[in-house]
Amino acid sequence: MLWRDLKAWQVYGANTDVGKTIISTLLCKALARRAPTNGLLYLKPVSTGPDAEADDRHISKYTTGILAKCLKQYSQPLSPHLAAKIDEPNHELNHRAGKLNVADRTLLHKVKDSLDAHQKAGGKYAVLETAGGVLSPGPSGSVQADVYRPLRLPVVLVGDAKLGGVATTISAFESLHLRGYDVQSVLLFDMPRWGNADYLKNYFSQHDIVTLSLPVPPERDADQQRDHDKLAAYYEKVSTSSEVKSTVDLIHQKHFSHISKLTSMPAHAESIVWHPFRQYGLPQNVVAIDSAYEDHFEVYNQETDALVNRAEASSTGLQPLQSAASSGPLLTPLFDASASWWTQGLGHGNPNLALTAAHAAGRYGHVMFANAVHEPALDLCYNLLSTLQNPRLSRVFFTDNGSTGMEVAVKMALRAAATRYEWNNHKGEIGILGLKGSYHGDTIGVMNCSEPSPFNEKVDWYKPWGHWFSPPEVKLVKGQWQVQLPSDESMPREEGPTTLFPSLQAIFDFEAREDDAQFYADYVTRTLTHLTHQQKQKFGALILEPLVMGAGGMIFVDPLFQRTLISTIRANPRIIDPAYEATTSKSTTEDPPTWSGLPIIADEVFTGLYRLGRSSSSSFWNSSAGSSIEADVAPDISCHAKLLTGGLLPLALTTASNSIFNTFVSDSKADALLHGHSYTAHPIGCSVANKSLELMRTISTSTIFNNPVGAITHTPEAHKPSSGQWDGYRQSWSSKPGSDLFSFFSPETLNTISNHQLVNSCFAIGTVLALTLESATSGYNSTAAASLQARLMTTMDEQGRGVHSRVLGDVIYFMTGLETAEEEVRNLERTILKALDGELAASR
Amino acid sequence: MLWRDLKAWQVYGANTDVGKTIISTLLCKALARRAPTNGLLYLKPVSTGPDAEADDRHISKYTTGILAKCLKQYSQPLSPHLAAKIDEPNHELNHRAGKLNVADRTLLHKVKDSLDAHQKAGGKYAVLETAGGVLSPGPSGSVQADVYRPLRLPVVLVGDAKLGGVATTISAFESLHLRGYDVQSVLLFDMPRWGNADYLKNYFSQHDIVTLSLPVPPERDADQQRDHDKLAAYYEKVSTSSEVKSTVDLIHQKHFSHISKLTSMPAHAESIVWHPFRQYGLPQNVVAIDSAYEDHFEVYNQETDALVNRAEASSTGLQPLQSAASSGPLLTPLFDASASWWTQGLGHGNPNLALTAAHAAGRYGHVMFANAVHEPALDLCYNLLSTLQNPRLSRVFFTDNGSTGMEVAVKMALRAAATRYEWNNHKGEIGILGLKGSYHGDTIGVMNCSEPSPFNEKVDWYKPWGHWFSPPEVKLVKGQWQVQLPSDESMPREEGPTTLFPSLQAIFDFEAREDDAQFYADYVTRTLTHLTHQQKQKFGALILEPLVMGAGGMIFVDPLFQRTLISTIRANPRIIDPAYEATTSKSTTEDPPTWSGLPIIADEVFTGLYRLGRSSSSSFWNSSAGSSIEADVAPDISCHAKLLTGGLLPLALTTASNSIFNTFVSDSKADALLHGHSYTAHPIGCSVANKSLELMRTISTSTIFNNPVGAITHTPEAHKPSSGQWDGYRQSWSSKPGSDLFSFFSPETLNTISNHQLVNSCFAIGTVLALTLESATSGYNSTAAASLQARLMTTMDEQGRGVHSRVLGDVIYFMTGLETAEEEVRNLERTILKALDGELAASR
Repeated sequence: MLWRDLKAWQVYGANTDVGKTIISTLLCKALARRAPTNGLLYLKPVSTGPDAEADDRHISKYTTGILAKCLKQYSQPLSPHLAAKIDEPNHELNHRAGKLNVADRTLLHKVKDSLDAHQKAGGKYAVLETAGGVLSPGPSGSVQADVYRPLRLPVVLVGDAKLGGVATTISAFESLHLRGYDVQSVLLFDMPRWGNADYLKNYFSQHDIVTLSLPVPPERDADQQRDHDKLAAYYEKVSTSSEVKSTVDLIHQKHFSHISKLTSMPAHAESIVWHPFRQYGLPQNVVAIDSAYEDHFEVYNQETDALVNRAEASSTGLQPLQSAASSGPLLTPLFDASASWWTQGLGHGNPNLALTAAHAAGRYGHVMFANAVHEPALDLCYNLLSTLQNPRLSRVFFTDNGSTGMEVAVKMALRAAATRYEWNNHKGEIGILGLKGSYHGDTIGVMNCSEPSPFNEKVDWYKPWGHWFSPPEVKLVKGQWQVQLPSDESMPREEGPTTLFPSLQAIFDFEAREDDAQFYADYVTRTLTHLTHQQKQKFGALILEPLVMGAGGMIFVDPLFQRTLISTIRANPRIIDPAYEATTSKSTTEDPPTWSGLPIIADEVFTGLYRLGRSSSSSFWNSSAGSSIEADVAPDISCHAKLLTGGLLPLALTTASNSIFNTFVSDSKADALLHGHSYTAHPIGCSVANKSLELMRTISTSTIFNNPVGAITHTPEAHKPSSGQWDGYRQSWSSKPGSDLFSFFSPETLNTISNHQLVNSCFAIGTVLALTLESATSGYNSTAAASLQARLMTTMDEQGRGVHSRVLGDVIYFMTGLETAEEEVRNLERTILKALDGELAASR
Repeated sequence: MLWRDLKAWQVYGANTDVGKTIISTLLCKALARRAPTNGLLYLKPVSTGPDAEADDRHISKYTTGILAKCLKQYSQPLSPHLAAKIDEPNHELNHRAGKLNVADRTLLHKVKDSLDAHQKAGGKYAVLETAGGVLSPGPSGSVQADVYRPLRLPVVLVGDAKLGGVATTISAFESLHLRGYDVQSVLLFDMPRWGNADYLKNYFSQHDIVTLSLPVPPERDADQQRDHDKLAAYYEKVSTSSEVKSTVDLIHQKHFSHISKLTSMPAHAESIVWHPFRQYGLPQNVVAIDSAYEDHFEVYNQETDALVNRAEASSTGLQPLQSAASSGPLLTPLFDASASWWTQGLGHGNPNLALTAAHAAGRYGHVMFANAVHEPALDLCYNLLSTLQNPRLSRVFFTDNGSTGMEVAVKMALRAAATRYEWNNHKGEIGILGLKGSYHGDTIGVMNCSEPSPFNEKVDWYKPWGHWFSPPEVKLVKGQWQVQLPSDESMPREEGPTTLFPSLQAIFDFEAREDDAQFYADYVTRTLTHLTHQQKQKFGALILEPLVMGAGGMIFVDPLFQRTLISTIRANPRIIDPAYEATTSKSTTEDPPTWSGLPIIADEVFTGLYRLGRSSSSSFWNSSAGSSIEADVAPDISCHAKLLTGGLLPLALTTASNSIFNTFVSDSKADALLHGHSYTAHPIGCSVANKSLELMRTISTSTIFNNPVGAITHTPEAHKPSSGQWDGYRQSWSSKPGSDLFSFFSPETLNTISNHQLVNSCFAIGTVLALTLESATSGYNSTAAASLQARLMTTMDEQGRGVHSRVLGDVIYFMTGLETAEEEVRNLERTILKALDGELAASR
């Protein structure tokens, strides 16, 4: 939370009994002098021990003109989680390390409300004092530094001046730091015998944190009045000392420099950053992200700020920074509805992932992977393969992102095909097969795997190399599920281009769709035979994004078409190379089978790893039950990135079957797959990926299904019970074990959306919801969805939170994290409907 | 440190006064029962307070058959850094957070020696008890968890059972965890009033750590004998309790599972990993890296293990795991002399970088960068540009690795050239200019920027597109510096192919080499005119790796040749396009100048950011003084990765001038640079890069030069004093301000190496030393250097440490980190000479 006029800080203690309340009192007294009466709020969210000794009373007693408030006082002087249990026998402790629960959120809202109310009342300062140490449990059992993290108030850390206090103070700082807090100042008592102040001043200066020491308070006096007078004198003297004054100056200065930097970032970015996918000739509102937590960014939006605060400021004739009238929060929470380009899964600012990353950094940094192996990388190979449950796969290759992972996949496949079909003197003549609308990354090699599009047409070295089928698409139109044949009429059918289905599930009932399968198979055979026999074209791979083509515009492809493509090519190598004679029967008898027809590459970069609700999106090609992929449709090569690290940092894996791998084995170094980036298999990425796969498996596993969607893994610690977190979503879609098909977005909302006047069609699956809007122009250059997108930024929910989304031409899409709670999804749905209605009203 | 037979643990306390010695005593008593007399070593490296109360005495008193030892006892019961100062008035405190000093290393060696001696004497167990809390300062002032990190002994953490102890215990765990320690077990006293044990059991179970509580020890008794008896009875009872027994069982089991996993990793990797650049048809020894610290890996080498331990084990008829005779450490420290593929700069396991990474993860995770900006990314743009000091550059584009960064550079340059020369209907016909031996990454687009080589010749889509000059090379041959014209005689010269120079500096004295420059300019003009005028070829970029071409075989290119290439092309746009008429004089009057002739791309991925001793390797093209790059030779585009994050994780930046950037500005989205990976500008990478650039600037800045090599940066906290860490290296090479030219490797050693019988030529610059060996076959497929490489793995220095290096055909190279101490470099030089002599002896 951040405002121009209200300055709020949080006081944490390095331990209990380090003088946190005394130092808070000193701070409050110094701040109160700079504030009007009631301009300073002292807030103790949770306090334990008798009322008479409560910290807010202490502060009130010694500070005039202060508002002091405690939100919850427990009677016993214990840790709040125990004190709560004593006062409220039904109090439940249900905490999970690093994850807030309902009680935490309730407490947090109360704190937020108090601060908001104080700001609205013209408050100038707020000091929030925590209880115990940095990681002391709150009433719900969650540690405090986690509970208050969403506020991310700047921290004044009270250090421990006693023997051992150097260690506890630095550790407390590290625990705050790894949770993304900014520690602005360290204050502690001056106890020269232990030398902590001297040590910590030097130590923290290396982290650019100022440490100041304050005189030790007077000894307690048995006489109450004398005790009070002595302490009052101490407070009076020390609160006006140069140390306290300079601390208050410092935290003021940090407040202003934070705001000044934050508000100037968009303009600075304008002059020095070359943003991805941005046309600088067109106006664009660049927002500054101050921090993020779970599904939300905390965003400074200069347009909103200009509208709200500057307008007010200019009407008062004051400069915004000095204006008491420049009210309203500077930061707006926005739901990260593009999941930060489809990467986010386990929540922004996840302390478990932060700690996991730090451990790997501390144990290894980055270490060499060529001819070497380390535990996180090896574990990840096993973890990924057991997650995918693809019986064909046995080898794992590491790169840095989806694009490089796909470059490797293409290198693997082309070599395998060229070797099998003895095309080695046709180098450079081998293309790939794919679907129109596909996209596999931004490096030139994989750009060449897609048909011409606005993404690649201006790249000078782009050379499309292959054939792309126009795919039949799945859509919900005005409440009706349907499969539509391509609008380019490349695939004409007597029955007409549209087939209606009673439900999404019915589209996946492949046994009932035998006629469709035969129609597709005939079409594929006819087309390929023409290309290879008549036109003499050579193809080295079939590349598919299972189910949904993302960058191409969120195209939901009929899974039966993809499935039929694979099986048709697999069954008929001679539609790829008319001259080919299978010399051995190896391919049919081997287990796992060798690749046949073409190496099949599944680009699961976007769709895989639970994005669509299943561990592997290739499993949607299965004809029936089971989360393991059926061997006859299982890809020979697959590529994984994005969610692989839970949304934290880049890492990609390309898997392959042994029959692909063996193509590269010879006694010549030059035959090896000579690919490897500098940070290949970097331990941080691997460790975070292992942790993420473990968490995602637990999250996704159902408690209502007998056979889990997740898989058994190599590492024993991964055997966590199922969380059942998705069971509600599954139930609302009547998802069935074995053919697990559902979305986080409700069927009712989807139906409503599909019937909206502005919507042409839509679909939802897993965490993804995509809307194609009615518009005059369509495609990537359309600006149809941009207006809705802009409206969503300022369409606020009850908690004042908007939505940050991305558009692809006339398509706008929304995506949740893997742990997004049902309440948040419903809330997002309401905001989307509200914004759609707003657009409609505006268009009239 | 890890052995099969000796099991060693380290006991840390969550705070002082948590019962660390009592719990250590319990642990020791339980272990002593399982060990022969003197089979258990209790080691207290540093103790403070009176001798009579020392922990080692306490343990000895209550444990029979134990060896108890304290390495250093200070008389005052204070933090060791203060106690040392009192006992030794000349004691110096000179600590830097996260970086060991000489005193730390001395202490560490003593501990290592004690453990080694105990192991050699047949010891079975060792318990090392630290002093105070996890981050309490050691005698030198460095925090203990940093001091003992290189040992990385498994940790038993003694938790804090008192009020507030939940917070201190978890924070202590986090401080250990982010330093790469494995906390195996948490033990604390059972004080139900505070409930810490219950809470921590649940909390740590989520990190797969077992927490056990033990009975509180008896109250002290005034009567000494009674006190002793009561405590002895307590120890006797509790040390045989099921809690202590199960702890001892658990840490045993973890010891065995660690070894079992470590030793099986190479075999598992063999079956599941697809290693980069590896030919599986050729035998290869894959080593397992258990951890790394500063310049060293801790490596399990199955070949050594098989030779040493299994041989011994089999001679005793016992299985290795159970064999007391299977002596010798399982882990060998190896100097990471390839700097983990040239990435490493600030030391493996660097706690400052780990903490920086964790903070960014905690504050953001990854957040969207398209149309958004965040503080770490924006700071990094300013930081990089001010580090490079290239007056042409003003825009920064983010990608993930050197290869993708170069793909972007190529896209930028080709578009700019095609637009300038109006070649838009010649799409796909525009090649690039470069040097033979260049390499720009593994993605297909940038592979096409290099001439055919073993790296790319088997890639089916590889299509070399351009012209590559054979470059003149710089070499030291038998003590003589020289520049050699290409051996393919493409550049014949009357004076002969070799020019001798008195020193490396003389080669960089471009003013004195006017004749060479004229010769090069004529050659370049002639060649290009032929290609563009006669052969009608089109070129869209000149791509150079400044000074040293890495992957191509560590080719040190005559900087005058690269400089002349740039200036010749810049001065004569018509040698690129004969039809070109400069329509405006804009290019000559603009400041900074627009690109001319061709966009010049500097691929500084390997050579940049201090690898060769300067912030930007393009500055080696300067004609004279100054660390800022002279505008006439400054590149229009440059690419940076590897050292950018100090050696921690992948991130790449491509910079560009405004004249390149403006080419992409229009009112059409399709004209934008449509490139952007999912994790573009990930905050962890940006934060770590900012920290690294700050540290590298401080490290590299000279205290002997007036004008610093580093640059002034945007962020105020970067204004650290110069460290002068490199001044010794500079002095040994008589490096001059403004033309800073030196190596970490000494001129004397280089001279000796160049005169070695097995060495054909060599060079050293910055942190790099490269040797071309005499061999029958040469090039990438040569195995000449492999034998020396293998020998280096087992050529041990006085501390039993070998060298892990990489070879490129007949070239073997060595690289230090940026903070590698002179003593370590000299040590590495001695090992290299020893191994060379060993090879020579073996060859006779």
